[in-house]
Amino acid sequence: MAINNIRVVLVHTSHPGNIGGVARAMKNMGLTRLTLVKPKAFPAPEALWRAASAEDVLASATVVETVEEAVQGAQFIVGTSARERRIPWPLQDAHHCGERLYRHAAQGEEVVILFGREDRGLLNEELELCNLHCHIPTHESYPSLNLAMAVQIVAYEIRMSQLAGSSATEEDAAWDTPFAPAEDMARFYTHLEQTLIDIEFLDPKAPRQLMRRLKRLFNRVRLDEMELNILRGVLSETQKKASRGKK
Amino acid sequence: MAINNIRVVLVHTSHPGNIGGVARAMKNMGLTRLTLVKPKAFPAPEALWRAASAEDVLASATVVETVEEAVQGAQFIVGTSARERRIPWPLQDAHHCGERLYRHAAQGEEVVILFGREDRGLLNEELELCNLHCHIPTHESYPSLNLAMAVQIVAYEIRMSQLAGSSATEEDAAWDTPFAPAEDMARFYTHLEQTLIDIEFLDPKAPRQLMRRLKRLFNRVRLDEMELNILRGVLSETQKKASRGKK
Repeated sequence: MAINNIRVVLVHTSHPGNIGGVARAMKNMGLTRLTLVKPKAFPAPEALWRAASAEDVLASATVVETVEEAVQGAQFIVGTSARERRIPWPLQDAHHCGERLYRHAAQGEEVVILFGREDRGLLNEELELCNLHCHIPTHESYPSLNLAMAVQIVAYEIRMSQLAGSSATEEDAAWDTPFAPAEDMARFYTHLEQTLIDIEFLDPKAPRQLMRRLKRLFNRVRLDEMELNILRGVLSETQKKASRGKK
Repeated sequence: MAINNIRVVLVHTSHPGNIGGVARAMKNMGLTRLTLVKPKAFPAPEALWRAASAEDVLASATVVETVEEAVQGAQFIVGTSARERRIPWPLQDAHHCGERLYRHAAQGEEVVILFGREDRGLLNEELELCNLHCHIPTHESYPSLNLAMAVQIVAYEIRMSQLAGSSATEEDAAWDTPFAPAEDMARFYTHLEQTLIDIEFLDPKAPRQLMRRLKRLFNRVRLDEMELNILRGVLSETQKKASRGKK
């Protein structure tokens, strides 16, 4: 089932009650896969209490140490973001994000939605892992949504898309090659950065926004596995030439 | 303002924490008018605590004895309902109810949305006061939404209706840099191809599908002008290193 390809990831949650509220919000909309990155307190009685009849979602939740572990295998990553970014990332509202999440999941892709800390949301380096940022259009008089409420809205929109029978007419519905998972993208970025240093295009002492802009570019496009192999090949060849040039 | 014509009414709420959660959910979406019909405990510290920065919504809430008092003056009443009724009532999902609520309010009508008890929802005689019943399409494995979550979803849909038309939903509507024109893209592809030949990654005698795949990749993403400049810079630097290697 498409919905089983969707993973909710909570990053550094402070209040265990919120984790319980998230579990209930998920199950109310048919989502069951929860991953917790370094929660402050879990398991916890308050989480169980707030989860009510969704204790099974808590019981099967995965706890990991890093966001990188949490997104492993993911082919489409959405991050929720309240803040305006200096470098804008592809951004859609919760309604369109719900559609995209469901559509990719229905195509058999592994899909992740990231929710940040109660006080500070997701950090820049976490947001840079994402293909798309999700904005919930709160009112300017009080824009700060409770964490479980944010999950509830996105889960609701996913469910609405599921019920609408989201048709696969979209531009990448019939792609020829699987999209690359997050861990391969991470390796690619490391390789890219090293190559740019090798050819002296990137100065590690004054990196500026270069890598951020390149991540935004390649996350926007979603590389398929063959494209990733081509680019890795180009980088390796470039490194060879650069080291030969030095001798 | 249209949104000031919308009144949220909670009927016989048991848990004061939920009242606080509702206040926050409302204010997050720009709603401020709350009426409580015979709450079990109010005011209450738990309500204040869960309301966080929406304590003003609690402070201005009206407490009444009966549902009839609560709906006084209302010209359009929506009741949330989880249950199937023996006598079917006009029923719409939360998305369409949000549209209707906002539209009537924008026309200057006084609008009420009723939410029932945590355990039993609205009674038949309360539902019969309504022009429309609102259904939030939860999953059959756990259909019972928390009260504040239900308010959050309806308030979110009202806000989405308010923003509709005024907001750009395109993911790249607010980009920071103009997208590159076709003629610059053509020059970029020529430069890319020559560089791949220079580093001996591309054999001009057996080019296969390489350039086609790379064009598909970069056309899919739509490069902005700054990204294009970065990539052109990388290519030039790579060519320098490759030619030095040859000497």
